[in-house]
Amino acid sequence: MSRPLILVTNDDGVNSKGILALIEIAQTFGDVFVVAPDGPQSGKSHAITLEKPFGKNFLLKTDSLTKYSCTGTPVDCVKMGLNMLMDKKPDIILSGINHGSNSSINVIYSGTMAAAIEGYMHGIPSIGFSLLDHSEDADFSACKQLLAKIVAMVLQKKETLCLNVNIPKLPASQIKGYKFCRQSNSNWQEKFVPADDNSDYYWMKGSFVNHDNSPDTDEWALDNGYVSIVPVQFDFTSYKTLETLKNIEL
Amino acid sequence: MSRPLILVTNDDGVNSKGILALIEIAQTFGDVFVVAPDGPQSGKSHAITLEKPFGKNFLLKTDSLTKYSCTGTPVDCVKMGLNMLMDKKPDIILSGINHGSNSSINVIYSGTMAAAIEGYMHGIPSIGFSLLDHSEDADFSACKQLLAKIVAMVLQKKETLCLNVNIPKLPASQIKGYKFCRQSNSNWQEKFVPADDNSDYYWMKGSFVNHDNSPDTDEWALDNGYVSIVPVQFDFTSYKTLETLKNIEL
Repeated sequence: MSRPLILVTNDDGVNSKGILALIEIAQTFGDVFVVAPDGPQSGKSHAITLEKPFGKNFLLKTDSLTKYSCTGTPVDCVKMGLNMLMDKKPDIILSGINHGSNSSINVIYSGTMAAAIEGYMHGIPSIGFSLLDHSEDADFSACKQLLAKIVAMVLQKKETLCLNVNIPKLPASQIKGYKFCRQSNSNWQEKFVPADDNSDYYWMKGSFVNHDNSPDTDEWALDNGYVSIVPVQFDFTSYKTLETLKNIEL
Repeated sequence: MSRPLILVTNDDGVNSKGILALIEIAQTFGDVFVVAPDGPQSGKSHAITLEKPFGKNFLLKTDSLTKYSCTGTPVDCVKMGLNMLMDKKPDIILSGINHGSNSSINVIYSGTMAAAIEGYMHGIPSIGFSLLDHSEDADFSACKQLLAKIVAMVLQKKETLCLNVNIPKLPASQIKGYKFCRQSNSNWQEKFVPADDNSDYYWMKGSFVNHDNSPDTDEWALDNGYVSIVPVQFDFTSYKTLETLKNIEL
């Protein structure tokens, strides 16, 4: 069997520590093709670039590693990889490792998770990885073995799925294991801080508010020292509300 | 009872024809507070602006209408409206009317729908409206009566929900009615067209591919002359996949 072909992307940019760690993990499994933003694209969600062209920049090619950066969003990177840059469809897409959490409602704002979901929409097994450490210099060494197990599991299953994986900021020895879980119910509350005294510009500063501490949620898993794994889908329909609406006459 | 307070936003920008039509509809129900992007923000999904400040611009205040534009994304507009500009929580959020479809998988790329979903995440009934006509000069006259009925229904229900409403591009007399439905399963396939002969920049051009023509879907409703109404939620968990993963040992 030929080595798997792995598309790697992220939202922190092609030179971030997180993606370098993920490329290392990916290279132990197969041939790696990187298409990642040329700079930070956090909070870009599923945004795509329609109003202007966007660019690619060839960085590197060896036998087992090809690397491009892209001036677009994380989802643009996946679309450009799949539809223009790659000769064949990848066996799996890995996105991250994100500097900071994408658990709970963060999934909806995250460029890292949007890239994984975009891959899944094209029928490709996809995993987004995030470490609960925002700092540019975060330590990803504990992640490598933990994440490799998940990649191995997904490659072996040969099932098209999408996973949102978050890793607590703990030494490897203190991580208790993995929990398959659901997204907890939460939101962000924002404050607006004036950028300076004489302008109408503001920094948006958010506080995360979790409304849901049930033991089957990702927030519970992370708070209790587990790696959280939430399988993700892209059907926004509220079937529960649909049932209640069906008898309404308009 | 005091008149309802209605927050209006969109992704095509504060001066687009679609939002002007929506403001007219909203004013027949209550006091209207507009916070909308200062220019086109299509395809911005749930993106938020974190890496730099963003601005507000006061435009107008009368007894029943207040208007701001904002230099951020549609979701930034909602966050700025709720957390800074408005004195009290709105009774409902109306987003649109979008120039072009947000049915099916378009919901994930849409700034218009992201704004509505953000409102719903804050516990506010929210509706995103879209007309299946991309042109800047689209004719929204058929929409007004059709959409007013939906706003009236949601205001009357006093239930926190989020609706994705799409309207076929047809004269009012040819619209058969409303269908409550689910999001059809679809994706976009992209081609990349060089921006010019000597650069690495490309326009991304997509083709919509619907994989799901079941009569309970929004695509079927729209193809058959109905206004589609999909109730929307923001839990990305795939409960079906979660069941299959629960027995895996990692």
